[in-house]
Amino acid sequence: MSAPSSADLPRNWARNIAASGAWKPGDPLRGREFHQMGTNRPFALEGGGMLSNAEVAYETWGSLNDAADNAILVCHALTGDSHAAGPATPQQPEAGWWDDLIGPGRAIDTDRWFVVCANVLGGCQGTTGPASINPTTGRPYGTDFPTVTIRDTVRAQASMATALGIDCWHSVIGGSMGGMQVIEWALMYPERVRSIASIASAAAASPWQIAWSALGRLAISIDPGWNNGDYYDAPDGEGPHRGLAVARGIANVTYRSDEIYEQRFGRGLVDPTSVFALWDRFQVESYLDHHGEKLARRFDANSYLYLNRMMDLHDTGRGRGSVDKAFSKFATPALIVSIRSDALYPPRLQTELAELARSAGAVVQREVIDSDQGHDGFLIETAAMSEAFAKFFATVDSLYVA
Amino acid sequence: MSAPSSADLPRNWARNIAASGAWKPGDPLRGREFHQMGTNRPFALEGGGMLSNAEVAYETWGSLNDAADNAILVCHALTGDSHAAGPATPQQPEAGWWDDLIGPGRAIDTDRWFVVCANVLGGCQGTTGPASINPTTGRPYGTDFPTVTIRDTVRAQASMATALGIDCWHSVIGGSMGGMQVIEWALMYPERVRSIASIASAAAASPWQIAWSALGRLAISIDPGWNNGDYYDAPDGEGPHRGLAVARGIANVTYRSDEIYEQRFGRGLVDPTSVFALWDRFQVESYLDHHGEKLARRFDANSYLYLNRMMDLHDTGRGRGSVDKAFSKFATPALIVSIRSDALYPPRLQTELAELARSAGAVVQREVIDSDQGHDGFLIETAAMSEAFAKFFATVDSLYVA
Repeated sequence: MSAPSSADLPRNWARNIAASGAWKPGDPLRGREFHQMGTNRPFALEGGGMLSNAEVAYETWGSLNDAADNAILVCHALTGDSHAAGPATPQQPEAGWWDDLIGPGRAIDTDRWFVVCANVLGGCQGTTGPASINPTTGRPYGTDFPTVTIRDTVRAQASMATALGIDCWHSVIGGSMGGMQVIEWALMYPERVRSIASIASAAAASPWQIAWSALGRLAISIDPGWNNGDYYDAPDGEGPHRGLAVARGIANVTYRSDEIYEQRFGRGLVDPTSVFALWDRFQVESYLDHHGEKLARRFDANSYLYLNRMMDLHDTGRGRGSVDKAFSKFATPALIVSIRSDALYPPRLQTELAELARSAGAVVQREVIDSDQGHDGFLIETAAMSEAFAKFFATVDSLYVA
Repeated sequence: MSAPSSADLPRNWARNIAASGAWKPGDPLRGREFHQMGTNRPFALEGGGMLSNAEVAYETWGSLNDAADNAILVCHALTGDSHAAGPATPQQPEAGWWDDLIGPGRAIDTDRWFVVCANVLGGCQGTTGPASINPTTGRPYGTDFPTVTIRDTVRAQASMATALGIDCWHSVIGGSMGGMQVIEWALMYPERVRSIASIASAAAASPWQIAWSALGRLAISIDPGWNNGDYYDAPDGEGPHRGLAVARGIANVTYRSDEIYEQRFGRGLVDPTSVFALWDRFQVESYLDHHGEKLARRFDANSYLYLNRMMDLHDTGRGRGSVDKAFSKFATPALIVSIRSDALYPPRLQTELAELARSAGAVVQREVIDSDQGHDGFLIETAAMSEAFAKFFATVDSLYVA
């Protein structure tokens, strides 16, 4: 094998990847169900746009009881989707992204709870997004898709909840972008949530997060395969994969920590006999390549743009006077979790959240998980998270019995 | 003025920028002098490459005394150059990058010291690099330029020192990539350095640093304007500016801290009336745009690739058994400085450096500057750095008098 020392190495890996990894009608359902929104009128968005014939893809685990009071909504993060739980099987090649936490006997116990997870608006795994067909043109929206916000996504979830017969969630739970939805649920529909758990999230996106997000968007926009968002007809390998891979790489690095990279990769080389060419690879680079390719196979670059923008626009204070005013009547029991080494959503942001909720008089359980895993700790630190959930659910039980 | 809400915004700003910001023979000298290397034989590089007719551009301040024992070498960081000191003037539009520290009566006092700063090998401000003419082809090297390492740059500086009549530097000083050169000076030429000061640097590049560096390189490589490194004939605006801007953006964010971004930008908008389009800009985005454009005007994208690779390859242990073995005879008095909030070169790396030097018996002054400025603190925290230098120079004086 010749050494990977050519400029082609970072440029040609995307050869056989379809232009978009979005789910399309006709693809295997893999547990997805669909909620149609606004069959008689379009779904109006916070930013002024409208979506006709929009739908929300979701999955469920466990059973809704007769009182419909055992439902938990799990909200996914940026590149997640409705497939939160379940093992990998031949029919379903990926385990759920929170399978360690959700299932029979697990922290979010599907023997007790009816668990629902919905793909967000603007996503690419069944819910209407930029890869969906624009009914006006008969072609994928691309960048004609309207801007969507966390509040729009929460309203879409509320519409789905109503259709499912769920007036009030026992809890709404999520990390990172999921944690943003969680907060907006409590602010927009306080009567429809009995408790919330927001992990590694914030009352508003910070300029640090916006900077990273914007650089990922720029990387996609300079990939000639992006073609101003109009790439759905491109042959395999010619979509915006390399731009998406750079954006994913930026995100991946911010999700972890210097300590973890040191432990995991050190200065290992892909080919120890080949060191001195411009494109020779350290193992850490090969790891980023691998995850870039993996995301390109299952995601849609335009969705990545829209969902990053959705996160940047997360600001509980918008249109409510200020963040403080938004929280002035906050009364929902809340679990607020940080990962100690999270550089992207540093604990100061969750401390702020917890103080906002406490100042308004809410019962708050504040946890800082002592982990060096960085932001991704919310997907990794199962034991600590399970313990936090167990304690929190016991508190919520006692509050509502009392 | 219409709102900056089009996809063209991040794509078309580079319209009037020359393909490369490299200095070319015939451009204003602005204080540069040149050292020709290997006039009778090519300069051989650590990675196996050769450079014919290579030269080093440098600037000097103060006067070399008769004993030639008052010389200080200042080593620049990634996008720095030989212009370390001096105010902005009509002839020299930029102040030196360390002007607050170098000058008459300043910490590095040019009334006492003869200060030299040389552009690194692979750079683009006068020293031979990928934008230089390849004597074999008569065209710019581009990616035919050989890989260069910190050790190559130090050997080039040693050749320059000999030509200047400097057998031994009183001190070799630098931050970040400059601090890497500093360490290699003490390891390669212990008899030619009386003391060193390495700031915000490391004994070897960490996988975290390599990851960021690699993502910047990928961003450049996917810009169609990069054209496999062959862009020097491109018309204005068609060079790899957008890729370079993404790379610069990544670096800029890693150079600062979450706290500083929060204080400086918050969630301010460029146009407060325009929020909801995909490319609307937060102020932090406009800041990154500005710095991307600024770098594209004064730098060369291929140099950026080669110098990032040079930093990734920094490993004092390479070819010396191990990092520990490399430092086993380290005896040079050393000032080792960290910035408390530096996420890219975290204090653990300088603590390791200090311990390596101390274990070998060297006199080490260890300083951690309590600043929230992040990695860029080495360019900003003038007062704390001046204090550290004053103390260190006094120690070195006392050591050599004794």
